Amino acid sequence: MVDQTTGQALLVDAALRSWQTHLDRAGQLFQGLTDTQLQREIAPGKNRLLYLFGHLAAVNDAMLPLLGLGARLHPELEEPFIKQADRATPDTLGAAELTRLWDEIHAALAAGFATLSASDWHDKHTAVSAEAFTREPHRNRFAVLLSRTAHIAYHHGQAVLADRS
Amino acid sequence: MVDQTTGQALLVDAALRSWQTHLDRAGQLFQGLTDTQLQREIAPGKNRLLYLFGHLAAVNDAMLPLLGLGARLHPELEEPFIKQADRATPDTLGAAELTRLWDEIHAALAAGFATLSASDWHDKHTAVSAEAFTREPHRNRFAVLLSRTAHIAYHHGQAVLADRS
Repeated sequence: MVDQTTGQALLVDAALRSWQTHLDRAGQLFQGLTDTQLQREIAPGKNRLLYLFGHLAAVNDAMLPLLGLGARLHPELEEPFIKQADRATPDTLGAAELTRLWDEIHAALAAGFATLSASDWHDKHTAVSAEAFTREPHRNRFAVLLSRTAHIAYHHGQAVLADRS
Repeated sequence: MVDQTTGQALLVDAALRSWQTHLDRAGQLFQGLTDTQLQREIAPGKNRLLYLFGHLAAVNDAMLPLLGLGARLHPELEEPFIKQADRATPDTLGAAELTRLWDEIHAALAAGFATLSASDWHDKHTAVSAEAFTREPHRNRFAVLLSRTAHIAYHHGQAVLADRS
């Protein structure tokens, strides 16, 4: 038997490992692509790899304020990669810039995660009021981490379908 | 502040909610398809929806023994949907059968999950020896739950790309 504090820490550790696994797999795919490859679609008429790369960077960047870890590093990603669909705005970022932003954003998240204790993870995230959190204690930081991990896996599953030859 | 026992339970609850969310989304997509629609590919030359439907059912069925919750209900899914690639074996199951198996497997998993306490989740899963678990305490039931949740999301992301008209 492990004590309860260790128990919590083991559960958080499992979730952080899962996050890192899926992040690394996606990073290995996207960060190895050229500008030409990033123009490829995941399926005919669907999103380009470029869009998914920027979309994951943008959504993960927004985890910083949501988890109370600081301001977004790249709020300029919101418009082209979250609010707008692929091809709705001209491309302004390429492989080199997105690779750099990806590393920067995920290094900031890793540093922020390291400041959280196991019990900080079941505290509320910043998009829920203290009052609502009393009624809905599942709207916590941990739920955000799990949700964003599955979000990476969802788009990674799509990205592997693109022709990368 | 919540006590540590409640803390563990909150983390497990978040993971079970995440599992259910992604399972429901995939179930809603696959279980609403006809036999004709299940023949569609997610992208040209890639897996058919039929294969992904059976693959997720098969992989999730195998969670029963892995989590120590009982034997697999449908070991016959292993060969066509895990060991073999799509189209390597003749189709033996259609929309009606897969819909029924899906519900049966996930009802058994839900019943099994309900028997586990929060601390049972950080116990080892059955594919790791007691000795190896001492060195690698992250090979626990919780890691399996998180991994299989992301696995559903990965293939759900692919399934949404298929033409379902």
